[in-house]
Amino acid sequence: MPDGIPPHVLRLYPLPGREIGEELVYEDLDPPGARENGLRRPRVLINMVASLDGRASVGGKAGSIGGEIDRRLMRLLRSKVDGVMVGAGTLRSERMSLGVPEALAERRLSRGLDEQPLALVLTRSGNVALDTNLIETSNQDTLVLNGAVNLATALERLKEHHGIELLLVEGGPSLNHALIRSGLADDLFVTLAPKLVGGARSLTILQGPELALENPPEPVSVHLSEGHLFLRYALHPPGRAGL
Amino acid sequence: MPDGIPPHVLRLYPLPGREIGEELVYEDLDPPGARENGLRRPRVLINMVASLDGRASVGGKAGSIGGEIDRRLMRLLRSKVDGVMVGAGTLRSERMSLGVPEALAERRLSRGLDEQPLALVLTRSGNVALDTNLIETSNQDTLVLNGAVNLATALERLKEHHGIELLLVEGGPSLNHALIRSGLADDLFVTLAPKLVGGARSLTILQGPELALENPPEPVSVHLSEGHLFLRYALHPPGRAGL
Repeated sequence: MPDGIPPHVLRLYPLPGREIGEELVYEDLDPPGARENGLRRPRVLINMVASLDGRASVGGKAGSIGGEIDRRLMRLLRSKVDGVMVGAGTLRSERMSLGVPEALAERRLSRGLDEQPLALVLTRSGNVALDTNLIETSNQDTLVLNGAVNLATALERLKEHHGIELLLVEGGPSLNHALIRSGLADDLFVTLAPKLVGGARSLTILQGPELALENPPEPVSVHLSEGHLFLRYALHPPGRAGL
Repeated sequence: MPDGIPPHVLRLYPLPGREIGEELVYEDLDPPGARENGLRRPRVLINMVASLDGRASVGGKAGSIGGEIDRRLMRLLRSKVDGVMVGAGTLRSERMSLGVPEALAERRLSRGLDEQPLALVLTRSGNVALDTNLIETSNQDTLVLNGAVNLATALERLKEHHGIELLLVEGGPSLNHALIRSGLADDLFVTLAPKLVGGARSLTILQGPELALENPPEPVSVHLSEGHLFLRYALHPPGRAGL
């Protein structure tokens, strides 16, 4: 789809269902409302794409699961936040950018945000494949975080020292799991791509031991575009201040 | 939830979104329309429940993933079909009924269907755990199928010899995969329960080699009730006559 023609997006939930402009899909995340969470850590959003059979990767890569519409809405979400984080394993698995295209960068500037979100790579091994796999975006800074420290502490430091109030995490499944298990994730965005993938060694969006969450995830919105369902859930981590 | 109080169901898609009676969720599957598919095999529906992270089982069992609303709509779907099939492995994993409660049985009779759908268990090993795990439903017959034969042939026999025109398959993941891979499944119903399960050895709704489908699954309807999303897709298997 050419960049100039915005795709057809249906908001299914909350009612009333209707066609909306793509730019309205996550408008509640625009500043300043979404940033004030009363916590010492940022508000943490997790965004993943999965097939109907729950696979978050094909042949070790996530990039091929979602269609163009998923990539458009992923970039829209990035355009709202102060930082975009991935685990080093995800970055090692495929070449990716963590930035937004020019039109969205301009919109960020007009809203008083930095031109690009801070690119964040969490690593334990130090092997982050920055040179080979991180596609450079102009005017985007990159911060490599040592994941051996406590995750909660690392997030607090991001808020205190780097001004990250709204953080988007794009996997991998182990990082997602660690954040949710520790009650450090607030919002889950799952794109359900109209695919059936199969495969014995495919990952799902969470990788780690069985979870026992205090509160069930709650549907916040459902959008449909080009066969892809965009599902958004509030995770209500324990101890989380209301938004 | 007491049986007498029908739950609140929102039809989100197709538009217009609105609250509907639970009994209307799958009304297009009522006879006679849904039964005439122009094929020698039955029309095959697959119904599964999964968590947001794609898990179709917790500790080897599917029963604990969906809530009461999922069980209600599962039984509603059963009430539309001529036969309900599970793989023997699924039956070995937990105690289950393949029938419908009395109120739905009466509605079947009033529509000219048998009081209960035929219970079908597909086995390769012959170990079907009928005595221990199949909860008996009065007036329901059970047929044990030898899965070592060709699946397509087995389905054709079900239509020709047992009058099964509309068949509901409720897993397990290997049987689902085999049907989809062979182009023998027409409709996929996935309940997305508002849960995050995790767990290293949890199954997803499909278990088997990577798939390469000719046609992408197409969203047909989306319903929401008690935090559960009820997603329905047309699978468009190759060579399938239009409905």
